Amino acid sequence: MNATGATIGILGGTGPAGSGLAARLASIGHHVVIGSRSTERAADARDAIVEEWPTVSGSLTANDNAGAADADIVVVATPWEGAAQVARENGERLAGKIVISMANALVRVNKEFQPLVPPRGSVAAHVQAAIPASRVVAAFHHLPATELGRIDHPIDSDVLVCGDDHDAVVAVSEIIDRIPGSRPLDAGQLSNAMAIEAFTAVLLQLNVRYATRVAPKLTGIDTG
Amino acid sequence: MNATGATIGILGGTGPAGSGLAARLASIGHHVVIGSRSTERAADARDAIVEEWPTVSGSLTANDNAGAADADIVVVATPWEGAAQVARENGERLAGKIVISMANALVRVNKEFQPLVPPRGSVAAHVQAAIPASRVVAAFHHLPATELGRIDHPIDSDVLVCGDDHDAVVAVSEIIDRIPGSRPLDAGQLSNAMAIEAFTAVLLQLNVRYATRVAPKLTGIDTG
Repeated sequence: MNATGATIGILGGTGPAGSGLAARLASIGHHVVIGSRSTERAADARDAIVEEWPTVSGSLTANDNAGAADADIVVVATPWEGAAQVARENGERLAGKIVISMANALVRVNKEFQPLVPPRGSVAAHVQAAIPASRVVAAFHHLPATELGRIDHPIDSDVLVCGDDHDAVVAVSEIIDRIPGSRPLDAGQLSNAMAIEAFTAVLLQLNVRYATRVAPKLTGIDTG
Repeated sequence: MNATGATIGILGGTGPAGSGLAARLASIGHHVVIGSRSTERAADARDAIVEEWPTVSGSLTANDNAGAADADIVVVATPWEGAAQVARENGERLAGKIVISMANALVRVNKEFQPLVPPRGSVAAHVQAAIPASRVVAAFHHLPATELGRIDHPIDSDVLVCGDDHDAVVAVSEIIDRIPGSRPLDAGQLSNAMAIEAFTAVLLQLNVRYATRVAPKLTGIDTG
């Protein structure tokens, strides 16, 4: 499929990551549907984004999760514990579609984030198992919500993308490629989502340790 | 401890990673003992290094693993399946010492490397459990053996270091800091070794996909 012009639904889109991604995707020309268990909360999240970024007003609507799951491409943006469940609940609507998993399974222990290993290795693998008829792609794990949402700034980061369906990986990479400053990198099969998700804990640790905002940029790659 | 001038033993130091690290550590002024189950194989590995890099001749000796475990600081450089076992076999000699775990648990599936999750989450955690009286530090996972061993070239990479003993992390970081071009980054507790080890699969995948040699360099960090 051609990802340009695709509508994008965001399940659990009211949190920081979902809202940030909604604003960002709307800013590059997608129609974005923010979904939530509660349409009212989705509407509040939408209003908050539009208040800050009036230019995306026409590209952003609010709905319940089922309504968001009707979009062409769907992002699961809930906290990681709920990702597979919300995908399963909307499994029929998601069948055949590209579904993007962006959650990281982390736990905060004292001042440090530690990676957790979900039983299937990754949140993305868990989501894929919940919706076997969908094409799950893992992406957007390392971008802080604030950076995603500041649509007047380029993102300035590599974005690792992996999945078992090559066409789906290419389509998601096309979307990422149109976000100013971000570069999609093909990180292979969905089995690598485990490593990408867990690595978020390392990046967060480095942010705390060095009081900075680490951008993973992998040198040596010429994607021309 | 002051890591400068410490002798360093390398358990299972005859493979590419161990030999590369041995040459590199000898080149920055450490006395390095290459260990192996077979002293003869260790001697062969030592001779091969010295043939290529005669300047490190005086800083490199060969011994069995027990002899290497007598050094001040010890690296476990076996393939990941054997790392905890060789540490346990030399547990008494390693008690109280800094032990560096550098192995990655990976499996090759077709043309792609995939991360495996050892039962304790990481090779490093497995090694630490095998030698509870030692201070295990995880480091050197993302550096290819060839790059480690080409001691006439700077390494040009960040090196993520983690461990539960802060002084041990600092000492290992001091060693890394003296390797030209490499920068140690404090990645937190040993629990993060899981993420660092698994991420090696992503880096290898990117190397294959983009026919390059990816160096993980994390921008935004000023360690000045």
